[in-house]
Amino acid sequence: MRINLNADLGEGYGPWHMGDDDAMLDIVASANIACGGHAGDPDVMRRTVRLARERGVSIGAHPSYPDLQGFGRRAMALSSAELENQIAAQVGALAGIAALEATRVTHVKPHGALNNLACVDRGVADTICRSIHAIDPGLILLAPAASQLVLAGRAAGLVVVEEIFADRAYLPDGQLVPRSRADAMIHGPAACLAHVLAMLEARALIAADGTRLATPIGSICVHGDSPDAVGVARHLRAGLQQAGHDILPLTEIASGS
Amino acid sequence: MRINLNADLGEGYGPWHMGDDDAMLDIVASANIACGGHAGDPDVMRRTVRLARERGVSIGAHPSYPDLQGFGRRAMALSSAELENQIAAQVGALAGIAALEATRVTHVKPHGALNNLACVDRGVADTICRSIHAIDPGLILLAPAASQLVLAGRAAGLVVVEEIFADRAYLPDGQLVPRSRADAMIHGPAACLAHVLAMLEARALIAADGTRLATPIGSICVHGDSPDAVGVARHLRAGLQQAGHDILPLTEIASGS
Amino acid sequence: MRINLNADLGEGYGPWHMGDDDAMLDIVASANIACGGHAGDPDVMRRTVRLARERGVSIGAHPSYPDLQGFGRRAMALSSAELENQIAAQVGALAGIAALEATRVTHVKPHGALNNLACVDRGVADTICRSIHAIDPGLILLAPAASQLVLAGRAAGLVVVEEIFADRAYLPDGQLVPRSRADAMIHGPAACLAHVLAMLEARALIAADGTRLATPIGSICVHGDSPDAVGVARHLRAGLQQAGHDILPLTEIASGS
Amino acid sequence: MRINLNADLGEGYGPWHMGDDDAMLDIVASANIACGGHAGDPDVMRRTVRLARERGVSIGAHPSYPDLQGFGRRAMALSSAELENQIAAQVGALAGIAALEATRVTHVKPHGALNNLACVDRGVADTICRSIHAIDPGLILLAPAASQLVLAGRAAGLVVVEEIFADRAYLPDGQLVPRSRADAMIHGPAACLAHVLAMLEARALIAADGTRLATPIGSICVHGDSPDAVGVARHLRAGLQQAGHDILPLTEIASGS
Repeated sequence: MRINLNADLGEGYGPWHMGDDDAMLDIVASANIACGGHAGDPDVMRRTVRLARERGVSIGAHPSYPDLQGFGRRAMALSSAELENQIAAQVGALAGIAALEATRVTHVKPHGALNNLACVDRGVADTICRSIHAIDPGLILLAPAASQLVLAGRAAGLVVVEEIFADRAYLPDGQLVPRSRADAMIHGPAACLAHVLAMLEARALIAADGTRLATPIGSICVHGDSPDAVGVARHLRAGLQQAGHDILPLTEIASGS
Repeated sequence: MRINLNADLGEGYGPWHMGDDDAMLDIVASANIACGGHAGDPDVMRRTVRLARERGVSIGAHPSYPDLQGFGRRAMALSSAELENQIAAQVGALAGIAALEATRVTHVKPHGALNNLACVDRGVADTICRSIHAIDPGLILLAPAASQLVLAGRAAGLVVVEEIFADRAYLPDGQLVPRSRADAMIHGPAACLAHVLAMLEARALIAADGTRLATPIGSICVHGDSPDAVGVARHLRAGLQQAGHDILPLTEIASGS
Repeated sequence: MRINLNADLGEGYGPWHMGDDDAMLDIVASANIACGGHAGDPDVMRRTVRLARERGVSIGAHPSYPDLQGFGRRAMALSSAELENQIAAQVGALAGIAALEATRVTHVKPHGALNNLACVDRGVADTICRSIHAIDPGLILLAPAASQLVLAGRAAGLVVVEEIFADRAYLPDGQLVPRSRADAMIHGPAACLAHVLAMLEARALIAADGTRLATPIGSICVHGDSPDAVGVARHLRAGLQQAGHDILPLTEIASGS
Repeated sequence: MRINLNADLGEGYGPWHMGDDDAMLDIVASANIACGGHAGDPDVMRRTVRLARERGVSIGAHPSYPDLQGFGRRAMALSSAELENQIAAQVGALAGIAALEATRVTHVKPHGALNNLACVDRGVADTICRSIHAIDPGLILLAPAASQLVLAGRAAGLVVVEEIFADRAYLPDGQLVPRSRADAMIHGPAACLAHVLAMLEARALIAADGTRLATPIGSICVHGDSPDAVGVARHLRAGLQQAGHDILPLTEIASGS
C-alpha cells in the first residue's frame, strides 16, 4: 500500500513566515511550494526547495492568482490566456530556483481560489492542464479526488494523483463542506487519522452523511498553518505507517500507478 | 564574417508598450526579453517570445533588479544570495513561458543598473554568472565588451559573446561615455554604422579620443525605444550585410566561436 | 448652461505613458487621476497633479481594484471591508501628493471593472460611497448617469455629479452598449458632439433605439487614450461653448447645482 | 517629567503578521504604522489604526523605500523627487485610512534603510523633511537623537521629537553600534531600563565607552518584533512610571516642549 503525504509549504514572503516548514518537511513526502503568486519570493523559494531536497521530499509548484495581499484566496477574472501564462511564469520561476539547488519541479498543484474554481469549472481546469502539459508533459498533476481538475488532467495527458484532505469533511457529491459551516473541519489527530484510514480502505470519499464516492486515492493533504498542524501531521504519518502504508514522494506514487 | 544584432524587447507591462517590437524583430537576430523585474508580465513575455520564435530570432532573458516603477534603473542593495535567486526566478519565468511556445531561452543579458554594476564590480558579475551557470550551463552570456562581466562569465565556464553599442561613445578604458555628457550618443544611422564598422574592422573598442581597446566582438546592441530606433537598426543591418557580414542568432555565433 | 468636461488621466506607470495628458489638460475642466490601483505611481501622480493645478483643472481620485497588470479591468472578489480600505488608501495617496503641490483632491470616480460593478450592484456602490464619505464628506462623487452608483452617492450624503459618455452608445435601460457589440462606439468628432448636445437638450440619456431616460447631466466624459482622443475632445469643447455652455470644474458644477 | 514610548507597528501584510501589536498597543503611547512601503496593506493599516485610536495611542506614518520583499532594509537609489513623492503617497495612504476611523496621522518616522541614511546624509534628511512639511506643517517628526534628521527637521520648520533606543548600544558619536558587532544590543528588561533611565537623567546619549553626547530626549523606541519584546516594553513602562515619568502621546510631548 503506497501513499503520498503532501503539504503547502514555502508560504512566506520577505520577512514573514507561515507555519513550521522545517517540522513539516520531516513529515510529508511531497511539498507544494508557493511560487510568487500568493506567497513565495525567490529567497523563500530557495530555502524551501533546499530543505525539501535535503530530505528527499519531492518538489511541486503551487501556482495561484497573482494576489499577494489576498493570498490567492480572492477570485480574479483572468482570461484563459492570462491564466495559462501566469501558471507558466510561476512554475518556471520555481523551476529556475530548483535548478540552483540541482533539483527539479516534478508536480503542480493549483492554490486557493484558483484550485477551488478548477474543481468545479472544467474550462478553467482545462486551461490549467494545457499550461502544465505545455511546460513539461512529465509534470504530475496533484488534484482533489473526484474533481473536474482530475478529469481535465487525464484528458490533457497528464499523470494525475488524487488527493484527499485529512482535516476536512466532504459533501455527498465529493465537494468539501464549506468552511462557513460548523461541521467543515475534522478536529484532532485521532479523528483525522480515522477519517483518512476509512477513505483509504473504502477507496472512496466518505461524506459526513456516510455517502461513498469511489475514487482512487494517491495522496493525503495535511495543512501546515493551523496551530496543531505539525501534531496532526505527525500522528497521521505514524498511523498510516502502522496501518501498513508506505509513505512515498509523488514521483514514486505516479510511476507505480 | 559572422555577427549578431540584438535588442532589448518585450519591455511593456500590462496595458503599456515600449518601442516597436514588431518592427525590431524583423531586424535583429536575438532578443533580450524582459522577464518581470523591470518590465514584462507573463502576457507580454508570451507575445514577445511568440513573435521572436516565428522569425527565428533567438531568445534571451533580460533579468533586472526587481523594480518595476524604476524600470530597473535604480541601484538596489541586494545581497549576493538575493541577487542569485532573483536571476534564477526571472530567467525561469521566461523559460516557463518559452515552453508554452515550444521554444527555449538560450542566452542571458542583465538589464539596467544591474548590468552597469556588473560591468565594473567583479563580485556582482561573479554572482550573476554563478546563477546563470547553475540554472543551465549551456546558457550564453551576452555582455558588454571589455567589461568585468565578460571576465566573470569566462571564469564561470559560460560561453560569452561580447557586444558593442551602435549609438554610444566609449571612453579610453572601454566604459561608455556617461549619458550626462553631451557627447554620450552617436547620432544618426550613418554615424552609427560607421562607428560599428570601424570597431568590427579594428577588432577593438574605439574611444571618442581614438584610443583602441582590443576585444573580440560577437554582437551589436541596437536600442528599441528611441524615436528613430527602427530606422537606425534597419540601416545598420543593411550596412553590415553590404559590408559582408552574416547576421546570425547568438546560438550560431556562440557555437561558431 | 454649466457643464463639466472630464477625462481619466495620469494613467502611466514608471517609464510608461498612456495618452497625451498635456493636450487633454488644456481641454477638460476636471481630471480623474490614477492613484496606484490600476496605474499611477507617486511620480506620475505628482506630474499629473501639477499640470492640472497649473491649468485650473480640478483634481479627482480614480481608485481601482489593486491590479496593475490588468489595469483594473479584471473583477476581483474583494470583501466590503477590503474595498473600503483600498479606496481610502488610494484616495489618500493622491491627497498626499496633492498636498505637495499645495492643492486638493475634490472628487472621486471609480475606475474600470470596479466602476462597472458599482453601476449595477448597489451593495458595492454603497461600500464605495461609505468609504468616500468617511474620508471627506465634501468629496464630490462623479458617477455615470442613471446608475446605482448615483443612488448610492445620494443616499450616503455625497454631492453627486452625473456624467455621460461622449463616444459610447446607450441601451434603453441607461447602460452602455457593451464594447463587444459593433454599435458600442459613437465614431468621429461630429457624431460625438451631436450625441452629447442632444442628450443635454433632452436632459436625458438617449439610447441607440431612441428611448429617452430622464436624468440630470453635470459632466461629459471624454476618453484620453484612443488615437483621435484629443481631436474629439477639442471638437467637443468648441461645440459645447458654441452652443452656449460654460465649461467648468466639478467644484463649480457641484456648488452651483 | 514627560516622556513618550513608541514602537513600529502594523508591520504585517496580507495573511502575515509581525509581532504582537495588540499587546504593544497597551504599552506604548505612540505607534509608527507601516504604510505600504515595507509592510502594511490597507487592511492591516485599518486594523492597526483602529486599535491605536481605541487606546489613545497617537498615530504616526512609518514610510519606507518601496520594497516589500526587502522590508525596506535594502538601500535604493531614489532621486530626491522620487523620495519626496514616495513619502507623500505613503503618508497620504495612511491618512486616508485614518480618516475611515475618524482619526488623524500626527507624526512621521522614516523606516529602515531610509531612516539609517537620513541619520547621516543631510541631503536625504532635507528631502524627507521637505516632503513632510509640504504634506502638513503640523506633522511631528520623530527622529533619532543627535542625528542629521533632527537638524533637517528643525531647519524645515517641523516640530521634532528626539528618540533613543532602549535596547541598542551607542557609539561615542551618537550612532548606534552596528548590529554586526557582538555588543550592539542591550539584553534583558533590567539592562534596557537602566540604560534608558541613565540617559534620561543625563539628558544625553551614553555610549558603550561612557562618552556622553548631550541631547534633548522626548521619546523611547521599543521594538515589537523580538521574542521578548512585550516583556521588555512592559518592564520599561513600569520602570519609567515608577521613576516619576508620565508616558504621553507624541502630540502632548510636542505641544509641551
